[in-house]
Amino acid sequence: MTVIKVFERPKLKNPILIEGLPGVGNIGRVAVGYLIEELGAKKFAQLYSEHFFPFVMLHENYQIHLLKNEFYYWKAKKPGQRDLILLIGDCQSLSTHGHYEIIETILNFVEKFGVKEMFTIGGLATGEIEDKPKVLGAVSHKELAKKYGKFGIDFSAGERVGYIVGASGLFLGLGKERGMKGVCMLGETSGFPIVTDPKAADVVLEALTKILKIKIDTTKLDKRVAEMEKFIKKVEDLQRKALTQISKEEKAPVKGKEQLRYIG
Amino acid sequence: MTVIKVFERPKLKNPILIEGLPGVGNIGRVAVGYLIEELGAKKFAQLYSEHFFPFVMLHENYQIHLLKNEFYYWKAKKPGQRDLILLIGDCQSLSTHGHYEIIETILNFVEKFGVKEMFTIGGLATGEIEDKPKVLGAVSHKELAKKYGKFGIDFSAGERVGYIVGASGLFLGLGKERGMKGVCMLGETSGFPIVTDPKAADVVLEALTKILKIKIDTTKLDKRVAEMEKFIKKVEDLQRKALTQISKEEKAPVKGKEQLRYIG
Amino acid sequence: MTVIKVFERPKLKNPILIEGLPGVGNIGRVAVGYLIEELGAKKFAQLYSEHFFPFVMLHENYQIHLLKNEFYYWKAKKPGQRDLILLIGDCQSLSTHGHYEIIETILNFVEKFGVKEMFTIGGLATGEIEDKPKVLGAVSHKELAKKYGKFGIDFSAGERVGYIVGASGLFLGLGKERGMKGVCMLGETSGFPIVTDPKAADVVLEALTKILKIKIDTTKLDKRVAEMEKFIKKVEDLQRKALTQISKEEKAPVKGKEQLRYIG
Amino acid sequence: MTVIKVFERPKLKNPILIEGLPGVGNIGRVAVGYLIEELGAKKFAQLYSEHFFPFVMLHENYQIHLLKNEFYYWKAKKPGQRDLILLIGDCQSLSTHGHYEIIETILNFVEKFGVKEMFTIGGLATGEIEDKPKVLGAVSHKELAKKYGKFGIDFSAGERVGYIVGASGLFLGLGKERGMKGVCMLGETSGFPIVTDPKAADVVLEALTKILKIKIDTTKLDKRVAEMEKFIKKVEDLQRKALTQISKEEKAPVKGKEQLRYIG
Repeated sequence: MTVIKVFERPKLKNPILIEGLPGVGNIGRVAVGYLIEELGAKKFAQLYSEHFFPFVMLHENYQIHLLKNEFYYWKAKKPGQRDLILLIGDCQSLSTHGHYEIIETILNFVEKFGVKEMFTIGGLATGEIEDKPKVLGAVSHKELAKKYGKFGIDFSAGERVGYIVGASGLFLGLGKERGMKGVCMLGETSGFPIVTDPKAADVVLEALTKILKIKIDTTKLDKRVAEMEKFIKKVEDLQRKALTQISKEEKAPVKGKEQLRYIG
Repeated sequence: MTVIKVFERPKLKNPILIEGLPGVGNIGRVAVGYLIEELGAKKFAQLYSEHFFPFVMLHENYQIHLLKNEFYYWKAKKPGQRDLILLIGDCQSLSTHGHYEIIETILNFVEKFGVKEMFTIGGLATGEIEDKPKVLGAVSHKELAKKYGKFGIDFSAGERVGYIVGASGLFLGLGKERGMKGVCMLGETSGFPIVTDPKAADVVLEALTKILKIKIDTTKLDKRVAEMEKFIKKVEDLQRKALTQISKEEKAPVKGKEQLRYIG
Repeated sequence: MTVIKVFERPKLKNPILIEGLPGVGNIGRVAVGYLIEELGAKKFAQLYSEHFFPFVMLHENYQIHLLKNEFYYWKAKKPGQRDLILLIGDCQSLSTHGHYEIIETILNFVEKFGVKEMFTIGGLATGEIEDKPKVLGAVSHKELAKKYGKFGIDFSAGERVGYIVGASGLFLGLGKERGMKGVCMLGETSGFPIVTDPKAADVVLEALTKILKIKIDTTKLDKRVAEMEKFIKKVEDLQRKALTQISKEEKAPVKGKEQLRYIG
Repeated sequence: MTVIKVFERPKLKNPILIEGLPGVGNIGRVAVGYLIEELGAKKFAQLYSEHFFPFVMLHENYQIHLLKNEFYYWKAKKPGQRDLILLIGDCQSLSTHGHYEIIETILNFVEKFGVKEMFTIGGLATGEIEDKPKVLGAVSHKELAKKYGKFGIDFSAGERVGYIVGASGLFLGLGKERGMKGVCMLGETSGFPIVTDPKAADVVLEALTKILKIKIDTTKLDKRVAEMEKFIKKVEDLQRKALTQISKEEKAPVKGKEQLRYIG
């Protein structure tokens, strides 16, 4: 059960998908979230799934918030720019197989709008505080490394990491199976859990906006990240708590005098 | 595999769904169970699911009881009242993704009877024995907090909790996706496991019956709760025992002299 | 993926289903297996499922054996007897939700042959060696306890146990939902793991054959059980080993100097 | 979600399936991989599945590699030879039930090309370094042991092992259900984790090529295995790391002063 609810069916011309779901350092979530705000992109669909955590969050003290991934679009304003579909969300799949199901569902959906290219954004946990975080890159097709190498992306990620877990990588892998091309941009970040890293998001945004020929004001990024962080941290905290709670309940000792008699 | 078996298809006029599945303090289960008895509501459908525990309970020493959720209806008797669909049950989903599947199945079902509004009932575990438990509330739509604030519901739950796990919250979240409006009522309760809290159920019932313009005699609540508690505790005990048993079996050491030879 | 492969579609008159899948003491497996041999019942279908363990066993040193449940039929020979469908197997579901799926699949299948009644056989683990094991019973419908009480079945199981896990109980619970009637017969057994209990199987067989008005020679039971036990124990041993092996592999420490860098 | 993407639909005459997915010692993977190279077999399809690990690997520093199983074909060149479908891959199913789904999907696929016979290749972990590893065999049908005993396969595997986990065994078990015949060849190997065993692959290849009446030059095997090993080890390492990482994250303690309040 993975459902996409569509509010509007915009006509887009050869759009690029930009993925920014939560992950290490929440770099994608923050970068794409900020891009959406600055561009004034419009929400046109949202997804929920049985692979998300089975709870709702409370915001503004009493309002229910279902865990979601959200689709926004933005139409090119100037020559050289491209129409965009921007994907952000509260979470990724809780189960391993859910990742495949959710990403295939999303690819089926965006393919109908003509998506043939994508940029995905993640973090690379270095274990150290990075003063000048780099952007590392991985690609679905070899030629893309040449094309985008000039935008400050370091295409030697494989020397330091062997794999990309979750959405940022699977979007490229599964997209390639249907003929889509993709670049994954990984911002270096410490990787300490539950830390949102605006510095890494900033360097990724810099490269991404150059590629997309978009100009945005990044001076408000720090402030906005601080705001966003509250919500993102809350989701993370809650998921951890709920996981711990569920785990505790499953391990709770059985009380009562009645002797255990198992029947089969 | 989540199946709803329907005994009767009552014609209902703009009915409200009242959900009372088991949870912390079993407040919803007790409150809605009592309401069903006092109103003389009629059972018209029941649900079972592969996401429930794979056992049957024995009651009256030798009768098999399959784990179920049950649907009752009640038709308005006086002006100002509304038709009701009341949902109670033995358990919620065992697996995380099962919650989504079961609740979507239920929403599909009650939507056909015209449900557009719902009240869900849960407990808020405070860790302390509450002498005067409050009813905290959460809503799918902001305006509902204003509308129902006057019935003694405290709409500041979010100050104290960040999320609602399971049915009480997901009904509102998933219902909202299809245009339904909902209020979740949470009775304060200690939250010690395997405790049914009639006091908290009482304060929730008080607010709920005021809202629904229904008068019921709550003097029998304590006695009925004591009766209900036996059955509810039994389900909980058995689930815990079965979980522990399953866990033990999975961890049982392998005996025998034959050396382990793994082939792949 | 639960598949039933049918070799023959016998015409049966109002047949009774007798279930004997493995469980505590393997009482059902042994009793029904022996009944099949003594009656000369004919195999007409077999089931395999993704919910079984993903391995094959080797028997006679080099022959592959896929884990299966098997269906046999026997036609009534004398007045007062009934046609039978007998179900035995190597295992039950590995996952909790698999039980529901497999049993519903089986009920769909046997319903087409006209099954409206069933006897399921399990064990009740007492924790003690029983010199004179009793047969305890549970029923889908109250009136059955009266009907079958005279055959030496003790219908007070509920005083000593609260639930029946797995097939023996769920067949009755799920069968009842489609109007089938059933009796579960539980032989008292020590319940020490990996022990097949012929004594308990004997007392269950005694009651069952009386009910079914069938006469079989039980003098060979001990010998046959010793033979059957080898195979049944092998399946159990292997499942335990495989579970332990899988668990070890999942916990195996990661080696190598390369520092872990997680990307998301 | 298990998808086979087909590049070409070769017309094959009574082809034999040769399975070489990763397992103990990676014997099948190495032997069939080498066979594909030496024969110049052509890739015609590939499979990916939600039951694989949800990550992509990076190779040549920046190229994304989705986990896959791959199908190659080779047409008989000389009398006595048979057309072949060769199956290799990066991994087997992560979940127990995934094995059944993936193998049934593959059997459905190859059945359309006329496959009625198969050879599967695995390893038998002996716990010791084998100087002269043997090839042990298991079969779907008794008569195959006679037929292939003369090729140096020892059909007494069952004396030393009781079961075959995963693809090598299930292909035979599930294939038999649809009338296919199969032989599983198990090379003796130490079974120390993350070791690719070219010696065991060599003896299996020797027997297999004799059976298939194919001549290949095995002098390059050691060198090629060393090359292949890098990639295979990487997949294994990454899976282990990812598993450990996921497990750590799930166990991470919850921090923060906010008291846990669980609502249900």
